[in-house]
Order: sequence, then structure tokens, then C-alpha cells
Amino acid sequence: MNAEIIAVGSELLLGQIVNSNARFISQQLAGIGINVFFHTVVGDNPDRLKSAIEIAEKRSNLIILTGGLGPTKDDLTKETIARHLGKNLVMDQEALESIELYFKKGNRVMTENNKKQALVLEDSTILPNHHGMAPGMMVDNGNCVYMLLPGPPKEMEPMFLHFGTAALSKQVKTDEKIVSRVLRFFGIGEAALETEIIDLIEQQTNPTIAPLAADGECTLRLTAKHQDLQTAEGMLDEVEGNIRARVGQFIYGYDNTSLVAELMRVLKDKKLTIAAAESLTGGLFQQELTSVPGVSSVLKGGVVCYTNEVKEKVLGVKKDTIERHGVVSHECAKELAENVAALVSADIGISFTGVAGPDELEGKPVGTVYIGICIRGKQTVVEKLELGGSREANRSRSVKYGCYYLIKQLKESQKAN
Amino acid sequence: MNAEIIAVGSELLLGQIVNSNARFISQQLAGIGINVFFHTVVGDNPDRLKSAIEIAEKRSNLIILTGGLGPTKDDLTKETIARHLGKNLVMDQEALESIELYFKKGNRVMTENNKKQALVLEDSTILPNHHGMAPGMMVDNGNCVYMLLPGPPKEMEPMFLHFGTAALSKQVKTDEKIVSRVLRFFGIGEAALETEIIDLIEQQTNPTIAPLAADGECTLRLTAKHQDLQTAEGMLDEVEGNIRARVGQFIYGYDNTSLVAELMRVLKDKKLTIAAAESLTGGLFQQELTSVPGVSSVLKGGVVCYTNEVKEKVLGVKKDTIERHGVVSHECAKELAENVAALVSADIGISFTGVAGPDELEGKPVGTVYIGICIRGKQTVVEKLELGGSREANRSRSVKYGCYYLIKQLKESQKAN
Repeated sequence: MNAEIIAVGSELLLGQIVNSNARFISQQLAGIGINVFFHTVVGDNPDRLKSAIEIAEKRSNLIILTGGLGPTKDDLTKETIARHLGKNLVMDQEALESIELYFKKGNRVMTENNKKQALVLEDSTILPNHHGMAPGMMVDNGNCVYMLLPGPPKEMEPMFLHFGTAALSKQVKTDEKIVSRVLRFFGIGEAALETEIIDLIEQQTNPTIAPLAADGECTLRLTAKHQDLQTAEGMLDEVEGNIRARVGQFIYGYDNTSLVAELMRVLKDKKLTIAAAESLTGGLFQQELTSVPGVSSVLKGGVVCYTNEVKEKVLGVKKDTIERHGVVSHECAKELAENVAALVSADIGISFTGVAGPDELEGKPVGTVYIGICIRGKQTVVEKLELGGSREANRSRSVKYGCYYLIKQLKESQKAN
Repeated sequence: MNAEIIAVGSELLLGQIVNSNARFISQQLAGIGINVFFHTVVGDNPDRLKSAIEIAEKRSNLIILTGGLGPTKDDLTKETIARHLGKNLVMDQEALESIELYFKKGNRVMTENNKKQALVLEDSTILPNHHGMAPGMMVDNGNCVYMLLPGPPKEMEPMFLHFGTAALSKQVKTDEKIVSRVLRFFGIGEAALETEIIDLIEQQTNPTIAPLAADGECTLRLTAKHQDLQTAEGMLDEVEGNIRARVGQFIYGYDNTSLVAELMRVLKDKKLTIAAAESLTGGLFQQELTSVPGVSSVLKGGVVCYTNEVKEKVLGVKKDTIERHGVVSHECAKELAENVAALVSADIGISFTGVAGPDELEGKPVGTVYIGICIRGKQTVVEKLELGGSREANRSRSVKYGCYYLIKQLKESQKAN
């Protein structure tokens, strides 16, 4: 079964909202073994919607439409499909009652045009809407299955999860499952990564291996198809094993994790607290840590030491250090890491000092970064980076490298013990 | 000129990422008066991509493709377009040099397959990539204009803003000038804003008034069309005047500015320095300030005081204050703001303490936030917020409110003098 998702709504074509529905539905369809070959977005225009449906019918046998089921004049999806399939719209009593109840609950007066939302395609399977008014529906004309869903994600998502997937599973002619796994890499570029495993990528048809780069990281998406879920997982395990044998040292996690989330996990495992002294990153490291709930058991806090005055007065960096080596230096990074840990009595101190750009500093080029890491009872380690990207990239890369180096040290010290 | 945006990438069809590029480009095209009638998403498959292009050619005369320009085997957009249009791919020396430079700067070894990224369509206009490697390109075959852009938003967005829109403006076959102006609002919801000016919105055809809400702010995009640029600007001035007469107090800036950028501007004008004590925001305020170059003349630094220990030890909040009122309190916000300013001897101290969520704190509900503002020689003001959104929303809203209240105070004190 090959699916196409058609999102209806001019607000999408004006860029006022992003098409998150297509993403959500695609994820769910992969889980029940339905391929998605196309997404289409079309405005609230019946002729263009009709043409989009006709194109979809030529290349897909499942068409899922989102949006255009509402009460207003520009909601036309149902009407267009009805005309296209030569079907009538009939009043669905259950839907009508639930709409009336919806208004009663909200103590609001129901205007007449809301009844339009209870009109459904004749001979269709109704998908109840427990989070809004317009019901969804599914109809099969022999050549193609059409599923109509409401546009608001708050209504569409639970409807699709509870009623849509069940209705589709019955339709699926194959019981093949698609399982996907993402390996996350840091410290190696996309092209270099591909060079290392190009033969694997070219050999593979099932599972497939797809590289993707974003924000200074890259990922490999492994996708396996098999009737038996466990067998599919096993196929992924085998490919992952082959990849790890070559570039395993760059893999830091799976799927939607991040370097910050991995660092949090390691710190919690080891019950270690951390403090940060941030100069060029200006609070970005701590901001990202604190975006994760429950961080207070790990992050004690820290100092944004943007000026030399703060480095000296608050973090006790020696005037002599700054005069002799500058703030963008191994020595300054070391003192910052050690002193911030002492200041808030944390197990670990990490520091970021460098040249974010656009201008050079102390004669050091943009992208020169020193990261100090001081783990209680161990000698402070300072890593030097030469990034040379944009100001924004240099700052976010520095944070990623900080997490990466700290995770590495914590795991190595674990092996050492 | 009617446009269609084709996003290429199997990761989109698997629902691993959302098609934010189509949204961004659509917003920009609206600004220069180009209609978007369709979005299409297709996987890394040359045949399906070719068919998507052929369909687009029948209904659009501008086709913008995103993704598939990278160095790896599954990046096929350029190759497919070249074959389809019967054009060669030629090595672009400038692009090649900038790619080599990119690796030199990063001290990384350039693998051979990276050169693939410097291949461009013959006779095409090159769109330089200042945030990555693969250049974009635009080619016009008489019937249709094709623009190829990289997939990663961090590369595509600046490329399209700086080079794409300019190249397209030349293509737009009309002597009518389209002028757009965005009014940025804070402190009023989209629905409330629309209610205040609904009659203006409905009357207007030229200029048009388009409301949009995002991240706790809302904007009105005013777009005027006229042969004479000055007349168009005058039309915008008149509409803006009518809007300001009703909701002017909520307007904080124009176009792509932000509350943080506006705050920076005011602080620089007044030659004032600032320091921050961040509890629930965890460094977000300072991180946003430091994302703007040249901030060092304004931001001295500050403390991320995530634990009570840091609030007491580093920022000298009285134990008694925390015991009697808690850390989520007017009193704690006041001491934090005053003490952080004193600690780093800044003119202004600002503090953020509250309950980001997901769990309540000290019996105070999620979204309870106190913002302390201490301006040298003035009595400290503490503002209380009751947000109650997601953790992420509560943190970013708090920073926006902090900027908003501080800008307001600085402007009022100006009037007072």
C-alpha cells in the first residue's frame, strides 16, 4: 500500500504554519508498514484540490487528506471529495449530537454553520473526534482508499492514533513492518563518514542506510522491512554492528537524543554535579542543560563571564594569567574550570573561552576555542578547537564539543576504574 | 509568477523531520508578491523526483527545490535536474575553493566526494553558501525558473534571504513594486489584536494586513503594491498610522528585529551595562544577548543560580528570605537583581526566578515567574507573571517579558527626565 498525504489549507502555503500533520502521519504509517511516497500541500481552492487528488490517485492507493473539515466557507475538502467520487453528504446523528454536546459543555451557543461539520460521506467509516467537533472519515472506492482528517493537530493526532491506524491496518494488503533506527555521530563529517562505509551503503537494499547531516552532527538512518518485527530489529542490529566496527567511536546515541541529553544521562548515572564558566558561549551550555527537566540534581549553576572583570572578580582568574596568556588561552580555560567548580562546590567544572566572531580577539582568529574540564580528583584537561564558522555556529559547536569531550572523559575514567 | 516548492528527502517522508523549509520560503515569497500554490515532498528517488518536477512544470513557472545537494550518493537533485533539462554539471571554482577553505578552517581532511558539492548546472546563477558547503543555483529555461537550495535550514535560510530573494525579484515580470512591512507586537494575543482591528483587515485590499502569531509574539505584515515605490511606502505609513492609533502601545519594532535586539539598542544608546541572575531561565537571557555581536559593551555577565546554594553563596540571597518566602518570590527576585548588579558592578541587574515546570515548586503552580529589575539609582521593580505553558514556552516567554519590561522602564525613565 503506497500512501500520499495531502494537507489542505492556504495558511500552509502562506507559511503561517508548518505542515506537522504530514510528519506525524508519516511516522505512524511507517510503523504499520505503509510506504509514503509523496506529501502535497494545496490551498483552500476546490479546483486545485481536485487536481491534487487526481494526481495522487495515479501514484498512490491510499490518500490521506488533512484539513478543510471545519464549519466555515473555506472548508471544502469533504465537498470536493464527495463531488469527485459522486457520493452524497449525509448528516451523521452521532457526530451532530457530539457537536451539540461540545457547545453545551462550553456553555456556548451553537451557530447553524456548525451543523455542516456533522455531514459525512455516505458509506464511509466514521472516525470520531474526541478533541474537537469535525469527525474524520474513511471511504474505499475499490481503486483507492481516502481518509479525511481534521487539520488541528490536537484533534487529528489522537483521532489517527485511536481510529485511523486501526482502520488502515485492516486495509494493509501486506503485513510487512518497517523498522527505522537512527545512529547519531559527532566528530566526523558526513562525507568522511560515507567514505568509511560507502561499500555497506551500496550493498544494502534491506536494511537501507541513509546519511544525513545537520548542525555539525551527522546521522545514519537504518530502515529494515520484514513481516516479523523481531527479525527486522535483528537485521538492524547486524548492520549497526558492521557500522560500529568501522566508525563506532563517533557514535554517541540513537534516534532523537542529543549530546546534552547524553551528558545529562551520564552525570545522573554517576551522581555527579556540574558547574560552568561560559565566556564565548554566554550561557548557551547551561541554557541547553536546563532545557531538560530534572536538571537540578546535576547542574548547580555557573557564571557567564563575558568581561575580564567578571573572570577576575567573580571567578578569581589571576590578573597575571590574563596579561601573559590572554583570556583565549589554555591557562585561562584551566583556571575558569577549576574555580567555577570550587565557587559552587560542584564535582565537575567546565569552561568555554574563545573567539566567537565576527572579529578576532587578542590576535587569535575567529573560531579559536579552549574548553576546560576539571573532574574532581583528576587533572584538569583543556581541549583546543579551531572552528572558524559563523558566530552562531562557533558557539553551538563549542557546546557540542564540550558535551562530547566530557562524556568521553567520564566514560574513559569509568573504564580506568 | 506562481511558485511550487519541492522538498527532496526520504527523512521527510519517514516523518523524521518536518518540512520547515517550505514554510520559510513561502513566507519570504509572500513578501515579494509571488504566489505559492503547491508544496510537494518527494524522497531521494530520481524517478519520483523527475515526475514531481514534470507535474510542477505544468502548474507553476517557478520551481524551488530544497535538499539533495550534499556530497553523498543519495543527494540527486542537481543530477536529476541536469538530466531533465539536458544541461551539464560543471565544476564551479569559487564554490570548490570555498569548500576547500571550509575544511582548512575546520582543520579537517577533505574527502574526494566533497568536490561533488561544487558541481553546478551550466549557465546557472550561483547562490553562495556562507553557512555550509553546497552552493545553491538558479536557472531559467524560458518556460520555468528552477532554484536549487540546500536542505539544512541553517544554510538554506541565509542563502535564500541574501541571494535567493534578490535573484527572484529580478524575475518577477511586473513593474508593480511590492513593499512589505512587519509590525511586531508583544503583550497582546493574536485574537485580541485581530478583534481590535478586524474592520481594518476586512476593508484593506491594498495594502493587505496579515496577522501571524509565533512564540508568544504576534506580527502584522502590511503589503502594498504600486508602480511607484514612494507611493507604496506612503500607503504603508497610512495603514500603520491607523493601527498605531488603536494598538500602538503593543508595537515594539519592525520586520526582523527581536525584543533582545531592541533591548541591546536601548542599552547601547544609554551606555548602560547589565548583569543577570538566572534561575528558571538557566542562562537563556544571557545566551540570547550574547548571540548579538558587540554585546560586550553592554553585558558584563551574570550567574546561573539554579540551586539555592548558588543563590545564597554566590549571590548573597539571605537564608531567611528563602526560608520565609521561597525562591519563587518577589523578595528573592529583588535580592537577586540587586546583588548580581553589585557583584559585577553593572548599571542594571535583572533576575529571573520561577517555576518552569513540569512540576510545581514551593506549592506555586507551573508558570509562576518573578522578574526583578534594578536600575542604578532607582527602586527595584519586580514583575510577576502567570504563564502556565510548557517548560520551554515558560522559559522563553520569561526572557521576552524581561526584555519588554526593561525596555519599558528605560523609555519611561527617559520621558521622566
